[in-house]
Amino acid sequence: MKALTALALCCGIALSTPALAADKPEDIIKARQAAYQFLAWNTHRIKNNVDNPTQFNKDEVVRAANAVQAVANAGLGALYAPGTDKGTGYGPSRLKADALNPANGAKLGQIATDFIREANAMATVAATGEVAAVSAQLDKLRGTCKACHDNFRNK
Amino acid sequence: MKALTALALCCGIALSTPALAADKPEDIIKARQAAYQFLAWNTHRIKNNVDNPTQFNKDEVVRAANAVQAVANAGLGALYAPGTDKGTGYGPSRLKADALNPANGAKLGQIATDFIREANAMATVAATGEVAAVSAQLDKLRGTCKACHDNFRNK
Repeated sequence: MKALTALALCCGIALSTPALAADKPEDIIKARQAAYQFLAWNTHRIKNNVDNPTQFNKDEVVRAANAVQAVANAGLGALYAPGTDKGTGYGPSRLKADALNPANGAKLGQIATDFIREANAMATVAATGEVAAVSAQLDKLRGTCKACHDNFRNK
Repeated sequence: MKALTALALCCGIALSTPALAADKPEDIIKARQAAYQFLAWNTHRIKNNVDNPTQFNKDEVVRAANAVQAVANAGLGALYAPGTDKGTGYGPSRLKADALNPANGAKLGQIATDFIREANAMATVAATGEVAAVSAQLDKLRGTCKACHDNFRNK
């Protein structure tokens, strides 16, 4: 379980906490899909603000960026339990089996580390209220999303 | 739109931001359902820890409580746009029309204010790592969830 361990370590959570022991795979998949959908809503709000600079709403961007940071640091590794590449939450899981393959542990761990670092930076940059800086940081953050999708999510 | 205004004010977000202007009702409902599902995952993790005090994982509780706080402060009022009591996101919306009725603005605003206050307190209490205090604060937080469900969510 090297891949999972890497995710667990970089997300700072033990995989065998009591919180998950009784959870069914479909519940875990649903929670995972909800976490990333909530994340997408927040990055979408930041994007719409940088795309409409004359209406830039710093308060909204800060709230959204803080939410992004909290999702990234929530311990999402717990939502990559064995077997959850198959099954249905809100819809069929799009997670590739590769994501749960120990051989990919280092690669997955690096992507997760990058994601958390850029999400933390997103919150810091949002607080400055500087549109260009927020836009640049959003690009960095989305790059880490894309790295995971390209490698570990089915189309 | 007094009800929406109250929610918007207490959640600190304008309802007519560019971020939402182009969003379809089903996208808003999906984002709302995801936000509360992610919230539920996090309160669930806190509950499992207080229910298993010998395995209490302070790190997990802190991460979950910080996520709860970020969701509560994300500006969820934006997800209660007119018409979103009907329609389907991941599933049919369970929001009662009453939630979007201006006559219920004060009531809804109070529930939202209570929710945000208790979510902020949840993060503060989690950081102490005191199981009994975390348990008591979780009860307070869940009381505000129940108040909204009892009044504004269909069974």
